[in-house]
Amino acid sequence: MDNCLLLDAGSGGRASQRLISSCFVRHFKNPILDVMDDAALLDMQGPLAMSTDSYTVTPLFFPGGSIGSLAVHGTVNDVSMLGARPLYLTCAMILEEGLSLDVLDKVVADMAAAAQKSHVRIVTGDTKVVPRGACDHMFINTTGIGQIVRTPAPSGHSARPGDAILVSGAMGDHGLAIMSARENLPLNGVASDSAPLNDLVQAVLEAVPEVHVLRDPTRGGLATTLNEIAQQSGVGMVLEEESIPVHPEVAGGCSFLGLDPLYLANEGKCICIVPARYADRALAAMRTSEFGREASRIGEVTEDHEGRVVLRTRIGGERYLGMLEGALLPRIC
Amino acid sequence: MDNCLLLDAGSGGRASQRLISSCFVRHFKNPILDVMDDAALLDMQGPLAMSTDSYTVTPLFFPGGSIGSLAVHGTVNDVSMLGARPLYLTCAMILEEGLSLDVLDKVVADMAAAAQKSHVRIVTGDTKVVPRGACDHMFINTTGIGQIVRTPAPSGHSARPGDAILVSGAMGDHGLAIMSARENLPLNGVASDSAPLNDLVQAVLEAVPEVHVLRDPTRGGLATTLNEIAQQSGVGMVLEEESIPVHPEVAGGCSFLGLDPLYLANEGKCICIVPARYADRALAAMRTSEFGREASRIGEVTEDHEGRVVLRTRIGGERYLGMLEGALLPRIC
Repeated sequence: MDNCLLLDAGSGGRASQRLISSCFVRHFKNPILDVMDDAALLDMQGPLAMSTDSYTVTPLFFPGGSIGSLAVHGTVNDVSMLGARPLYLTCAMILEEGLSLDVLDKVVADMAAAAQKSHVRIVTGDTKVVPRGACDHMFINTTGIGQIVRTPAPSGHSARPGDAILVSGAMGDHGLAIMSARENLPLNGVASDSAPLNDLVQAVLEAVPEVHVLRDPTRGGLATTLNEIAQQSGVGMVLEEESIPVHPEVAGGCSFLGLDPLYLANEGKCICIVPARYADRALAAMRTSEFGREASRIGEVTEDHEGRVVLRTRIGGERYLGMLEGALLPRIC
Repeated sequence: MDNCLLLDAGSGGRASQRLISSCFVRHFKNPILDVMDDAALLDMQGPLAMSTDSYTVTPLFFPGGSIGSLAVHGTVNDVSMLGARPLYLTCAMILEEGLSLDVLDKVVADMAAAAQKSHVRIVTGDTKVVPRGACDHMFINTTGIGQIVRTPAPSGHSARPGDAILVSGAMGDHGLAIMSARENLPLNGVASDSAPLNDLVQAVLEAVPEVHVLRDPTRGGLATTLNEIAQQSGVGMVLEEESIPVHPEVAGGCSFLGLDPLYLANEGKCICIVPARYADRALAAMRTSEFGREASRIGEVTEDHEGRVVLRTRIGGERYLGMLEGALLPRIC
């Protein structure tokens, strides 16, 4: 019990102060956070992108990451998808009484390492401790803001017929990794792709003067995210199945479990839609990033099939790829 | 079961889309949110204040408010305490499978009403649904940003000997209201003070050229918050007990329960520390706000008693007011 979180760490009193300084401030240390006022003072100029995500993933640690690294990468990526340069993150924790302080420390250390790798600072936070049974171990919210570096910003509303559809790498790794970790499935070589995409996005923006859409295919996977974009832009999409990268161990695991990798969550991949004439430049830019080596052109935007996504299969057929129906796997992120 | 939240509403698929449009977008409707990209695009200029809070209060509805109104007011207030004008909020929900959709709708409506009253827009969000038992009904995170309107910004580090210590109203209402709602105590007339303080803060900033400290005494109450400021500023404080406003029903309830209102949470009050010559102007400005009618000068900042807070009691004695030790009441906010 010595090394377990007690309820009074969320009281706002002396025990809260001890937890904050011994854990959060120690790992996140930076001059903005260290001021410890009610809000962080940020000397940045607009226009801005702002995004929020709560992370409830279970298990807390999984092949390729943890709830801590995921909570940083996920929000860094959402901010990046507006073509913005992420600068600052908040960190709000909901912790269950009795949580191991070693587990908490490891998660916070993972957040700090991920923030450093993503060139962002965690500048303000909040800690709530709820009684045993009121939450499952820990939930983390991160909210990020970044500086818009390109106007007009890429948007799900901006796909145009004739555009090329690119992805920055292989699909389905995160979803299958969580599933196998949770169910103790023997899927060798499957690991989450959780990674920060801000450098990759900056490389694309520098290489290509017109980026219509950037979006990361998280919950619901590639298929659901492309459907959203098709609806928002009022266009159709045609994908070539054989061009969509899927790691062999993921393809194998999916076929074993009856899953479709195009509906599994990704946490280190983005969709990029650009005028066809810039497709090769955008792909080359993505491949300069360690997280974009397997970038691929997977299809094109069409006038036909408005609001829908068509998959041309390996065997030459065509079928509609709908949005995800039902719940594939709760607490994936 | 028809009117209960199902797990697939957090899948990222079609059911998520339905929940988002039928509940969140309907209540929060504004041109920035309606774009529905991965992040919100905000056309604002810096410097900024940014603050985050997760709300886990139980019960979800209590005299004077709900988790929804509290989640807006609390973050609006934290941003305001840097002397900033709050502009935008995020809303991230963690919802338990089986939650009544009517309850969710009512909470979201409360958030929308509170946002309107606070002149802020809710511009982006996130929804996670966790299986039954993984969280207790619902948790909300809001993160706010606002425009700094005064440099240097008020800070807990800026209290100076000779300054006057003011509070915007009576102490302890929120803490006692939650306690009585949770335990079904018959405390008539006790209600949370949950309210947005941004207009009150703007009035003070307009009236007074030098505001050293603004802070809202939430968890840990007035006593704990003043101790934090005394430590951050390296000063002492002397308070006059008879000047600290406490509603009679709160004083009565506290004396009945053996509680000290100076350690109970407030959610619609601020501490304001200004040079003594501006004290009356600051009080007059606070009293122009409907939430500052009972503003009072409660003490002064001293060179003596560095890092500590002294209370001069009604009967003429003096005692140190320490920080809150232990956990008074979990899930107060």
